[in-house]
Amino acid sequence: MYFINKLAVSSAALLLAAVAALAGTAPAMAQEQQFADLGTCGEIAECRIGYRTYGSLNEERDNAVLIPAWYGGKTEQMDFLAAAPFLDPETYFIILVDPIGNGVSISPSNSASQPMGEFPALTIGDMVESEYRLVTEHLGLDRLHAVTGISMGGMQTFEWAARYPGFARKFVPIIGSPRLPAYDIVRWDTANAIRAWERACRCPEARAINAGFGLVTRPIGVANDTVTREDSFDFIETRAAEDTFDEGTSWDLQRQGEAMIDLDIARHFGGDMALAARELGRQVDMMVIVSREDRIVSPEPALDFARLAGFATLVTDEGCGHGDFACNRDVWTAAAGAFLTAGD
Amino acid sequence: MYFINKLAVSSAALLLAAVAALAGTAPAMAQEQQFADLGTCGEIAECRIGYRTYGSLNEERDNAVLIPAWYGGKTEQMDFLAAAPFLDPETYFIILVDPIGNGVSISPSNSASQPMGEFPALTIGDMVESEYRLVTEHLGLDRLHAVTGISMGGMQTFEWAARYPGFARKFVPIIGSPRLPAYDIVRWDTANAIRAWERACRCPEARAINAGFGLVTRPIGVANDTVTREDSFDFIETRAAEDTFDEGTSWDLQRQGEAMIDLDIARHFGGDMALAARELGRQVDMMVIVSREDRIVSPEPALDFARLAGFATLVTDEGCGHGDFACNRDVWTAAAGAFLTAGD
Repeated sequence: MYFINKLAVSSAALLLAAVAALAGTAPAMAQEQQFADLGTCGEIAECRIGYRTYGSLNEERDNAVLIPAWYGGKTEQMDFLAAAPFLDPETYFIILVDPIGNGVSISPSNSASQPMGEFPALTIGDMVESEYRLVTEHLGLDRLHAVTGISMGGMQTFEWAARYPGFARKFVPIIGSPRLPAYDIVRWDTANAIRAWERACRCPEARAINAGFGLVTRPIGVANDTVTREDSFDFIETRAAEDTFDEGTSWDLQRQGEAMIDLDIARHFGGDMALAARELGRQVDMMVIVSREDRIVSPEPALDFARLAGFATLVTDEGCGHGDFACNRDVWTAAAGAFLTAGD
Repeated sequence: MYFINKLAVSSAALLLAAVAALAGTAPAMAQEQQFADLGTCGEIAECRIGYRTYGSLNEERDNAVLIPAWYGGKTEQMDFLAAAPFLDPETYFIILVDPIGNGVSISPSNSASQPMGEFPALTIGDMVESEYRLVTEHLGLDRLHAVTGISMGGMQTFEWAARYPGFARKFVPIIGSPRLPAYDIVRWDTANAIRAWERACRCPEARAINAGFGLVTRPIGVANDTVTREDSFDFIETRAAEDTFDEGTSWDLQRQGEAMIDLDIARHFGGDMALAARELGRQVDMMVIVSREDRIVSPEPALDFARLAGFATLVTDEGCGHGDFACNRDVWTAAAGAFLTAGD
């Protein structure tokens, strides 16, 4: 996820952390990696969940906000989400979570008893269940102020709302989805097929095709801004020559990809998405943020859901597609921050 | 090219031909395949060019319109272009051309002396040169009324204008391009990489990835209309099971893909595309038709060129992407037909 990595690397949060370190003060960022051992999570053994916290619990123990990471994302990249105007750690107890399969929490790449392809089928529901147990069993909380997340984090947010509508006051899925449409499913399935082939052949051709596939499933303008015409002629050959293959990461992304393909929050409502929207429209307070040109998580299912449920929506259109959340960060962090703090 | 094939198969032209055959009249469609033997075309031996003609030359021998086929396209699929309101064979002598590499004209799949991977590098310029020789040497014409074509046929139309601006009165490139941007280049290069892998492995995995790649590089709405969500889960596996591989077709598409990647009409103007546009703006009469959501031949280079040159443009926005030319056929055939006949 190029944009997410780019954002993390270039983010103001890192700069602030560096500045704070130079000044000798303790930054709100770069909190330590922590873990909760949950035993087993369904079929998944050694169910260890990584997380980081920012800010403090208030006396009422009701100011916690849970933010699970995106596809392949890690909490070490998420400092920028524990900051005003989105979420001020002076006000909120922010819990960033490493979802199962991200290489930090229990994953194909680090499981001793279920390594690599032996790792069980993974669902977004498995991630959410483990996060619920982290919050309740490990952190001893009986409510959350909010659940929010980006991309696959937004998918987990939808699943959280469907499973535990009364557990959090607010939900903000950002470029997420309640259920993927055919385009998205074929996209993730094809990405997984390329990955499977790469594991089998360890060949530059697979890396070349993987690189090309990643570029051309972005908005055209983004692709043309990412690669010059001059470099485009040997773009895939150049990428093929970079031996970046890592078997563990390949399996981690495979299982997380399968989890997204499987997602369908309507399962909790007899398979009826319209009913899911109407029911959650009555039960929860949600703001849905999507990007109009998004070709990684297409916006229609989330938008249709929000309209049926009567939820607030923010539709960005910066031309960056799935990267809109980086291109227009000032806009959505302000809008979502206002929604998250309203009525406090 | 799904949409083009779909159009050809379901086209009104085929229906009309069938009706005319039933009525015992000679239809304007389904003209016989003809060939011109041109000796060699640069490095390409056995340079045999396929074509079909509709209508008759007038006394002045100035009513001929040349229409080269698209990527992978054959003149047998192009009846619908030899019909009013686009081009009436009662008025025009219409020459449909099989471009080099399409499996009918000299191609990797049918060359005796340069078969398959031994076929020389192919350029859009090679196609245009052979078409110029077909028209001048073989058909004995010293001018054309117009050159027009769809997709790679539109690319050949741009190249025709750059090489022979005075030879035709009008040029109408339809969803074509004067030079591909990075996105398009990486897209064709990736498609060729998948093709090369398929030739090497003959494996279902390559077909699966090829099918997925084809679907997700369309507009999202088109992908979702093409495959149901239910079918999407095993879309690539289903396609993988269809053994449609043909080595000759694979090499034909490879060489035509390479030709499109190589296209750059600015070469005829010292590499300066702005100069090319200004010069051709003075020298030729052109109407440029593009589709706004096109992700196969992205519209920006053609649009930018038309704006600099001061050419008429038609920008379609039917949501069908590269398939807009099929979705809105009534609109563009009427507009282009009016442009092609104006001032006759």
